[in-house]
Amino acid sequence: MARWVKHIQLRAGMRIDDLVQEMEKCGVFSAGRVAKAVEIYREMLRQKSTIFMGVGGAVVPGGLRQALTDAIRKDLVNVLVVTGANATHDLIEAFGGHHAQGDEQADDVELRNRRISRIYDVYVPQEAFEIFEDNIQPLLAKVLEKGSRISSAELLRRIGLELTDRNSFLKAAAEKKVPVFCPAIADSILGLQIWLYSQDHDIVIDTLKDIKEILELASGAKKPGAVLLGGGVPKNFIFQSMLLTPRSFDYAIQITMDRPEPGGLSGATLEEAKSWGKVAKDAKTVTVVGDTTVILPIILAAVMKRS
Amino acid sequence: MARWVKHIQLRAGMRIDDLVQEMEKCGVFSAGRVAKAVEIYREMLRQKSTIFMGVGGAVVPGGLRQALTDAIRKDLVNVLVVTGANATHDLIEAFGGHHAQGDEQADDVELRNRRISRIYDVYVPQEAFEIFEDNIQPLLAKVLEKGSRISSAELLRRIGLELTDRNSFLKAAAEKKVPVFCPAIADSILGLQIWLYSQDHDIVIDTLKDIKEILELASGAKKPGAVLLGGGVPKNFIFQSMLLTPRSFDYAIQITMDRPEPGGLSGATLEEAKSWGKVAKDAKTVTVVGDTTVILPIILAAVMKRS
Amino acid sequence: MARWVKHIQLRAGMRIDDLVQEMEKCGVFSAGRVAKAVEIYREMLRQKSTIFMGVGGAVVPGGLRQALTDAIRKDLVNVLVVTGANATHDLIEAFGGHHAQGDEQADDVELRNRRISRIYDVYVPQEAFEIFEDNIQPLLAKVLEKGSRISSAELLRRIGLELTDRNSFLKAAAEKKVPVFCPAIADSILGLQIWLYSQDHDIVIDTLKDIKEILELASGAKKPGAVLLGGGVPKNFIFQSMLLTPRSFDYAIQITMDRPEPGGLSGATLEEAKSWGKVAKDAKTVTVVGDTTVILPIILAAVMKRS
Amino acid sequence: MARWVKHIQLRAGMRIDDLVQEMEKCGVFSAGRVAKAVEIYREMLRQKSTIFMGVGGAVVPGGLRQALTDAIRKDLVNVLVVTGANATHDLIEAFGGHHAQGDEQADDVELRNRRISRIYDVYVPQEAFEIFEDNIQPLLAKVLEKGSRISSAELLRRIGLELTDRNSFLKAAAEKKVPVFCPAIADSILGLQIWLYSQDHDIVIDTLKDIKEILELASGAKKPGAVLLGGGVPKNFIFQSMLLTPRSFDYAIQITMDRPEPGGLSGATLEEAKSWGKVAKDAKTVTVVGDTTVILPIILAAVMKRS
Repeated sequence: MARWVKHIQLRAGMRIDDLVQEMEKCGVFSAGRVAKAVEIYREMLRQKSTIFMGVGGAVVPGGLRQALTDAIRKDLVNVLVVTGANATHDLIEAFGGHHAQGDEQADDVELRNRRISRIYDVYVPQEAFEIFEDNIQPLLAKVLEKGSRISSAELLRRIGLELTDRNSFLKAAAEKKVPVFCPAIADSILGLQIWLYSQDHDIVIDTLKDIKEILELASGAKKPGAVLLGGGVPKNFIFQSMLLTPRSFDYAIQITMDRPEPGGLSGATLEEAKSWGKVAKDAKTVTVVGDTTVILPIILAAVMKRS
Repeated sequence: MARWVKHIQLRAGMRIDDLVQEMEKCGVFSAGRVAKAVEIYREMLRQKSTIFMGVGGAVVPGGLRQALTDAIRKDLVNVLVVTGANATHDLIEAFGGHHAQGDEQADDVELRNRRISRIYDVYVPQEAFEIFEDNIQPLLAKVLEKGSRISSAELLRRIGLELTDRNSFLKAAAEKKVPVFCPAIADSILGLQIWLYSQDHDIVIDTLKDIKEILELASGAKKPGAVLLGGGVPKNFIFQSMLLTPRSFDYAIQITMDRPEPGGLSGATLEEAKSWGKVAKDAKTVTVVGDTTVILPIILAAVMKRS
Repeated sequence: MARWVKHIQLRAGMRIDDLVQEMEKCGVFSAGRVAKAVEIYREMLRQKSTIFMGVGGAVVPGGLRQALTDAIRKDLVNVLVVTGANATHDLIEAFGGHHAQGDEQADDVELRNRRISRIYDVYVPQEAFEIFEDNIQPLLAKVLEKGSRISSAELLRRIGLELTDRNSFLKAAAEKKVPVFCPAIADSILGLQIWLYSQDHDIVIDTLKDIKEILELASGAKKPGAVLLGGGVPKNFIFQSMLLTPRSFDYAIQITMDRPEPGGLSGATLEEAKSWGKVAKDAKTVTVVGDTTVILPIILAAVMKRS
Repeated sequence: MARWVKHIQLRAGMRIDDLVQEMEKCGVFSAGRVAKAVEIYREMLRQKSTIFMGVGGAVVPGGLRQALTDAIRKDLVNVLVVTGANATHDLIEAFGGHHAQGDEQADDVELRNRRISRIYDVYVPQEAFEIFEDNIQPLLAKVLEKGSRISSAELLRRIGLELTDRNSFLKAAAEKKVPVFCPAIADSILGLQIWLYSQDHDIVIDTLKDIKEILELASGAKKPGAVLLGGGVPKNFIFQSMLLTPRSFDYAIQITMDRPEPGGLSGATLEEAKSWGKVAKDAKTVTVVGDTTVILPIILAAVMKRS
């Protein structure tokens, strides 16, 4: 037997990275996988990998907006692919709106009557969307000159540069020159607002340009690594960026609650990605089955410490 | 107590709709939900609802291509929103390529060496992608005149009309005038091919136009119903189509293996959608937790029978 | 490529076993697994395997009581291992009590006030437990002579023989000489009632005797097969029956919604069981990820047809 | 809106309880639930609750043996209900055997040939079971006088007192007078060994006595609380302990990856338990959907800190 399981030793007041070290000695089950994710992340940082992070699911409403922003500012991520919803909810807060703590068992008809939209146990008051609308329309007017035909990444960069909220991940990314792709931008409330704007203004969000831009990043990446929070378009768009290059990801960390058996990409194993050439044959990979809002903070806090 | 649970009675050689009837009398657990899904689907057909179907996950590679095609031809669905992958895999077969029965525990490095891409236990030989590439490029040239700026739905309609394979759901949809939206089309192999084509040809896929087109359908829909296979962009794009109208879905059926607790839209309950106004306060809804490849055939076969 | 995926073809009024045949030609995803489960079950019947069925989860309250009873009467199962809850709920109905169709989102405090116990969306009125108590005590007095020290299987056999309800699986099993083990019988409402009875009567339920009895069955079994509905004690007790013999299961079918990553036995793969020698190295096995109340009826109906 | 979501703020070198505090301010999704679990646990300790812990799943092989032992020694738990497997694996290590770090994708036939039993990614060398057998038989002879008829809890208490390994949770529990119930003891390798012993010795493990003993604890408990690691028999046996008393649990924390829809008790919500009177109408409860090996260490470390 290579290594024995050493049982996790807890101590009052212990640090997160001490716990991760215990998990590493344990080496099995999800605890072992969290430790392996930290190990891979640290190696990516040591190797100065280009780190692509996919942000699916409701990461921003769920309380990880600041963690994303800090990860960008601390150079823990170099390229982002996000859902339109995560961009929308970042902007809601950047414009002064809020998300509230709610109840996932609430009566949704009553919430509707109270003009509250629910995301599991997060409440979004209608007012937040009104603030969003009031602010995004003039902002689009500012950044989209007539006849604009730009990628989602270019649009989000221009928007990010205009923001004043330092806690916005879009602002942090724009400042740090971390591209933020949103290839399904039409599929979001931000997309609806852009469409409304486009009714009177001749503009196009050209997501084929996003393909071109991410392909260039994939081609030029140094020992590329993928950190996938949930699945969906962000996971696939990151992985497919390698399909037109001779390259593949040398590292991959996946945090998900989806399961592989139904066959969708969101729950697919990282092994499967090797058959496609998206992930390198000898890549270091780990899938942590768990909720991003618990797993990601542990990983990032541990990575910040020792890196 | 309103109604007692009546235990499911099985008979040798029984028909699917007899089983569904037993499940209806049972009325609980997933069996009861399958029966309720059939009941709602039948009511949608009786009410001549406009039925929006979301096709997430690997429905086409997983063996449901013909079921989709037949559902379109038999007027069981009126609007489709699909992932780029499902469009890609429909086209692969329309062009003469195949998917093969594989092994989800295979060595993916070996598969890579054999030039086989894996989707759970489905194998896609590299040849299938080559057939796809060889055929899609001239087809794009045929349907995309210079300077084209069209929606994903318009592109898929034009492609569908050119196909000769009667088993293609894209062809069936084009013939039956069932729009097929693919708002994240850039996020697929089809998208990569369109991008390659666009390198030498000035074309744009304008997904903001998709918003406009689906909004019109949502506004004009009669007693709209949603049938959601998996989550992802198709689910959200169908639901958000109601956000800019005063309307909402009167019926919703969801088949998914995702769970609500991580907070992402894919696993969200249909109740949650009521708080947003996507689903009507008094809508008839049901979520079946199960695999689409087992649940959808039961529902469709039962619906075909008695409708 | 060995075999191409053939897409499932649906027909109005089709029989369940026709659907299973389509799933077999498809051969992938959960549809393919349902077909494989049917194929294995048919082979077990052809080979006159001794079939051990594990009944975990709320199979009886969920509407499958009659299916179990019929499976026993039609020789589709030869040994049962059940949870105490499934025995309890079979007896509730045998004594004239009922389960009702309920609502999984009900207010449980209100249900408590209405004296209704909830099992997901099944309601058990307090009256059902009172009927159970009123009937089980005299029945125990009848079958447990003073000083009894018997296995759970012997107790359930004696109880089954006294029942008059032909729809009871305990009665069917007793009549067909199908042993029904319940090694965690203390962990159920039936167990609580036996304990109450034991307060005034010197009796012992000796679950070590259950070990002896199932070991004998395992040792003498012909080409043993396991059909596992859910996990828990039934799954483990069936599998461990092989640990003290030189034998192992030649067939295994597992229907479960649990997942393997947390490491518990309930979600463990059937491959893992090979490492223990519980399942033979060359056994035919399949795991269907799905809800028993949907998957089992399909399998049993298909097996009944052609066997 | 009651409280806004405050985004989790990470810091290099932060302590676990600082992270929990951030999660509390966040208040939503799984992060919020971990924080709520800590809050409930702290309140139980302040209130000097009698804390019943259910240990289902492969907690001991998965690296949490020491955490259990320390929780007992630090008065964080007062009554245990465990699976036979967790008792077995504690004893394996107490007798000098080991668990090893393995690979969940290993070839199980090869493992079988190498005499290694696999529990997800934990390997148990055959030698470990041999050490277990060599030690448990004389130990049983020591603690089970002829004609013994004892509960599982009494057996485990006597075994615990004989152990010399201070890291054993059975030893810690025996020393601290924390009862350890194992109502399904026949369903484990420990059970098989007891049965082997009983072949030559007239002994009975009387699990009806376990009912009596836990009922007394439930009746006498002060503000009883339940901490449920996974489901199975431990969860049910803890909950049913309240059914014959007029009382119910005032606190309940559940960590599980099972889901409620299939209807089994393991995945059932804590709300459901209120309808049965197992959990008090106004109890403080939380379910964390996640892996015990990650979630429990966070909770225990945070509780140790400030309590």
